[in-house]
This record gives sequence, C-alpha cells and structure tokens, in this order.
Amino acid sequence: MIYFDNAATTFPKPPQVGQAVAEAFTLYGANPGRSGHDLSLRTAGQVYGVREAAAEFFGAAGPEQVVFTQNCTHALNLVIHGLLRQGDHVVISDLEHNSVLRPVHTLAQQGVITYSVARTSREDGETVEAFRRCLAPNTRLILCTHGSNLVGWRLPIGALAELAAGAGVLFGVDAAQTAGVEPLDMEAMGIDFLCTAGHKGLYGPAGTGLLVTRRGGLLRPLLQGGTGSLSADYNQPELLPDRLEAGTVNTPGILGLGAGLRFLKEQGMEAVARRERAVADVLYAGLARIPRVRLLPRGALPVVSFNLEGLHSEETARLLNRAGFALRGGLHCAPLAHQKFGTLETGAVRASVGAFNTPEEARLLVQAVEKAAQTP
Amino acid sequence: MIYFDNAATTFPKPPQVGQAVAEAFTLYGANPGRSGHDLSLRTAGQVYGVREAAAEFFGAAGPEQVVFTQNCTHALNLVIHGLLRQGDHVVISDLEHNSVLRPVHTLAQQGVITYSVARTSREDGETVEAFRRCLAPNTRLILCTHGSNLVGWRLPIGALAELAAGAGVLFGVDAAQTAGVEPLDMEAMGIDFLCTAGHKGLYGPAGTGLLVTRRGGLLRPLLQGGTGSLSADYNQPELLPDRLEAGTVNTPGILGLGAGLRFLKEQGMEAVARRERAVADVLYAGLARIPRVRLLPRGALPVVSFNLEGLHSEETARLLNRAGFALRGGLHCAPLAHQKFGTLETGAVRASVGAFNTPEEARLLVQAVEKAAQTP
Repeated sequence: MIYFDNAATTFPKPPQVGQAVAEAFTLYGANPGRSGHDLSLRTAGQVYGVREAAAEFFGAAGPEQVVFTQNCTHALNLVIHGLLRQGDHVVISDLEHNSVLRPVHTLAQQGVITYSVARTSREDGETVEAFRRCLAPNTRLILCTHGSNLVGWRLPIGALAELAAGAGVLFGVDAAQTAGVEPLDMEAMGIDFLCTAGHKGLYGPAGTGLLVTRRGGLLRPLLQGGTGSLSADYNQPELLPDRLEAGTVNTPGILGLGAGLRFLKEQGMEAVARRERAVADVLYAGLARIPRVRLLPRGALPVVSFNLEGLHSEETARLLNRAGFALRGGLHCAPLAHQKFGTLETGAVRASVGAFNTPEEARLLVQAVEKAAQTP
Repeated sequence: MIYFDNAATTFPKPPQVGQAVAEAFTLYGANPGRSGHDLSLRTAGQVYGVREAAAEFFGAAGPEQVVFTQNCTHALNLVIHGLLRQGDHVVISDLEHNSVLRPVHTLAQQGVITYSVARTSREDGETVEAFRRCLAPNTRLILCTHGSNLVGWRLPIGALAELAAGAGVLFGVDAAQTAGVEPLDMEAMGIDFLCTAGHKGLYGPAGTGLLVTRRGGLLRPLLQGGTGSLSADYNQPELLPDRLEAGTVNTPGILGLGAGLRFLKEQGMEAVARRERAVADVLYAGLARIPRVRLLPRGALPVVSFNLEGLHSEETARLLNRAGFALRGGLHCAPLAHQKFGTLETGAVRASVGAFNTPEEARLLVQAVEKAAQTP
C-alpha cells in the first residue's frame, strides 16, 4: 500500500518515534511529577525535555508555555472555551476545520458569543482585508487555520497577527496542517495561542497535541484535577502548565513527540517540506493532464485535492484503495471549505504528502488515477 | 529498583502492552474513522475491538457506551461538567481524589452547584447512612471513589448505587484505583458513570482513560470538533461515543489498553488481585512490627500507607529511594483523606502493589523501612 493520507496522520513514523515510545515502557515508566523516587524524576525529566524542545521549536519564551493535550481539537477547545466570555466576538476563516467551527458555533448557539467568517483569498492582501472587515468593537479573538486541510492554502498569519495586535485583539492559530512543514515562530510572529496536533507534521504518535501560549493565564481550565502540585488546595493551581494539564500525562506519546521533533531537527524541517512539495508538484502536474480530473485550487502545502467528473469522491477513493493507494475521500471535517469550493455534495479526494513519500510514488498514483478515470 | 508505586501508574506493563503499542506504528498507523482506505478501516477495527473488550470487561450494554479519554480525570470532568446544571447538588465522599474534588469545588465556587461530603467509615452500613444523610431534594448525582488512593478503603458501591436509584439520583464511580482489581459490573451494580484510568490496574499505557456510561446522552460535550461523522454539521453530532470524543483518538494508547485487558483476562483478574493482596499482607504485617512505623488504617485494596514517627513522609520516601525502592511520599492529591487521617502536614508514604510485585520484594521493603527507622 502507498500511503497518501498524511494530513489525517503521518505514516509511517520515523523509527526513532516508535523507539522513544518503547522506552516509555522500559526506562521511563513511572508517573512524572507525582512521586519523588528516581524513576518518577527520570520520567519527569524526559517529559520536561520535550516541553523544552517544543518551546524551542515554536519560538516560545519557555517550556512552561507548552501544554500537552490529547490532540489539536483539545488545544483549540482550551482556547475557545477557556478564553471567551459572554458578549465576545470571534473572527474565523472560511477554511476552518470542525475543530474550530464546532466549538465556536456551540458557544454562539448558547448565546455566549457571536462570530464572523472571513472570506479567504489566494491573494494575501485580500485575505487580511476580509479579516479586517470582520472586526467589531467586541472582537476578542481572531482564530484561524494556518493552512487548509482540504486545499492546502496557507493563510498569511504574520499579517493577521499584526492586524490583531493593531486592533487589540488576541490571535490564535490552528497549525494542525502546518506545524513541522511551515516555519512558526510564536514570538517573532506575534501568535498568542498556537494549537497543533502532535501526530501529523511533527511525526509524533496519535494521541498527542500541543497548545503553546504566552497567554495561558487568560485561560480558564476546562478540566480540573490532580496536578501533583499544591495538592492540599481544593482549587486548580494557577501555576502553568499545571493549571491546564489535569491528570496523568501521556508519557509514551509525549516522548514519541519529542523523537518526532528531533527527527525534524536532524533532517531539517525545510528540507523535508521541500521534498514533500516536490512530490506534490509531480502529483498536481500529472493529475492536471488527466481530462476527467477536476483539481481543487492548490495552495502552498503538500496537499492535492481533486475529483473525477461524475464520480463521488468516496467512490474514487475506493477505486484507488483497490489499486493500493490510501487517500481520503468524502468530506474533510471542513464544511465551510467544501462549500467554498463547491464540493459539499461530492466531497473531494485528497492526496496529502508526508516525509516518506517519493516522486515515484506520486507518478504511480497519477497512473492509478488515470486508470480510475476510465471507469464509466 | 523495586517498584511499589503502582497506584500512581503500574510498572512494568505486561510485555504484550508494549507490543500492541508498537503495532499501532507498524500495522495500524492510519487515523481510524476518518478515511475509507484499508489501513484506516483496519485501524478503526482494532480501536473498535478495544471498545468491545472494555464494554465486556465492565458489563456495559455495548461498545458505544465506552468513551476513550486522556485519563481518569478527563472522564470524571466529562461527567461533572457535562451533567451538572445550575442548582444541582452533588454528594461526594471524604476520600475523593482531586480529580473529583477540584472540578466539583470549581462548580461550587462558580455558584453553579452545591455539594456535601459524606463521612466514610470502615463499616459499610455507616458509610451508606452517611451518604443518605447528605441527600437533598436537589441532589442530582452521587459521585465517589470506589477505593481510596491513600488507604485502599473500598466503598460499598453496590449499596450506594441502590441508595442513589431509590432516591432518583444518578450514580458515578471513580474507579481509578479499583478497575482491574475489584469486580465492576455496570449493569448489575447499577452504575451510571464509571470513570477510570487505563494505566493503573488495567495495565494500559499512560495517556489512556475510560468513561463507560449508559447515560452518555445526558452529558454535554466539553470539547467539540472533528469526529469523522456528520462532517457537514456545524454542531457536535449526537451519536455516541462520537459526541464525547472530539478529534483524533490515541490509537497506540488504546491498543495498549486492549492488550492490558487481555492480560487481565488471561491471568484472571481475581488471581492477580489475590497475589497483590498477599504481597500487601506481607508488607502490612512486617511494617506493623516496626515500633517507629505509624500505619494508616488499611482497606481492601493492595495499598499500605504509613509514616515513620518524627520524619516527614517525603524524607522517608527519599531514604527508601536511596535504598532502591520506589514509593510515593507527600500528599496524594487527596486532601480530604489526609485531613481524615491526620496526615495533612506530614503526608504519607504509600506502598502500592502491582501484578509483578512478589512477597520477597515486600520482605525486602520491610527490611529497608526497618533500617530507615533507625535514622535519627
């Protein structure tokens, strides 16, 4: 099987990720931050090391700004439910995943907040203008994807952060599709809340996510519980990241995520991204030559989405699966984006490239699509 | 090092747990429930298998009653924040962990709910009476630990479930310390919400927890996001367990948890628990003979907590660590229980037994405590 579903989760993972996870069962198997014995301290030291590595990777001021979460959705909900108060207004984009849209919509349905959807464009200036037009006196937060999971469009988050700062509005980014692919520097870019998955471009295990924030003190914790700190206090401690990390953390996942970050550092994140774009180029150019293929407008990320005219995307994905290729069809948890691109009915077939895909695999996929296109 | 900190997390894990986790990187590495290709379907099938196994293990009516969470704290918060409404009253016990106490206290501080603390006793009838006296006309939920993490007292949850049912009150259990050690049958016992960690007596990896419930429909989701289902809907789907599981699940952790459940099935949960109690018996009897040891009153679970007269528990734990034993000192995230047993100042040294501890290890620990007791 040739795997082109890396935007759902990257596969395979670098071998060192599995090894780091295995070490969490042999060398670092205690509960970190709970006990004072050597095994617990060693385990806590390893977890702290990943906190430091993640802070460095995203240009955060320190490891206490790194909150380990279950997935990117969890991180985004910490921001949305933790920050927003009665009467607040939020601006999101028309490319958002349900991980942003659903919690924002839920709060709006409850009458807590209102929200506006900025219409994105391939022209960055137009996108920024669209966000500017959505700002209102009660806007508290701009929260948007860094890159669309459907079409790979990249939003100009540097310019959007400037817009937010100028308007006295907080700025959060859903970097699920871009962390590990696009440069992200919290401090330099002025990002208040960076949310991402650990198991996509960061090559960590499923079950990991990150919220990196210099504004953790603004967030009400969604979960309260044991933190191993200030245990006699009936209240959740104010201390960060403890405040936002109740209960036992996912040591195997976190150590695996650390190995994923090391992999990117060793390989060079930009070199990996360049190789991925080259594979996506082969795909895009090859698919563009097939008459029955309808390509969705392409962005900067190594994601190519398309349909075969007259076939539902699920059916096309099924044909490709039978031919030995793992692609995702249907809706991609991004209903606004499907609406924008006219694929709410048919969905779309998405080929998303990872570090281990090769140009040769892309050529084979193009051939398979060509063959599928001959299906009546 | 000899590990006696199994109430924090069990260590080591059975070898098959690490193997199952490794397979999540090789055989089942796709995102389950998101795509339709073979690798995603195979991965989803494995995750579903663990859902079925957990439902069977806890006597739940079906796999849709099993919600995978990050830890027990997460499961408990789903119940507390998901269920309770303005004006509700809750009864908890005086043995609760901060994973129950803190979220309940938070809601009370916000003026949403009120709560009462039932004074537990070693005599089950007295405990049930104490809970009965706490009931009020607006009581919505009895939520209590099945077994204390500090002293191993087991609460009579069958009788408490009856009390709740008779009063028209919902009943939830924190089974963090008992799942995998004590029999738990949701349907037979009348438990509405069973919350537990995956990484303690169930021998799964850290980063896993479970909420098993026949009342999932009553819970408002704390997190909204992608579920891979009804993707065009801006609202979180009503479908269970999707409704309560937003974002990518922890496949490696879940498959590891499945292997932990299989381990218990193969070994026989009661046989494992019997061995653990035997080790705890050796410990208790041995420690009781040391004049300077002050034992906390013991319960049914394989947990033995004590102090050396005149030494802070952290100091005793440090001495034992130097002698090669991993025990937890200090406060155990259970301030009410420490208050009850007069150890809020000194904390307590806790030896908690797991499946792989031996009576010989218990004898060695007793010797080490004897030696530590000679410290001035």
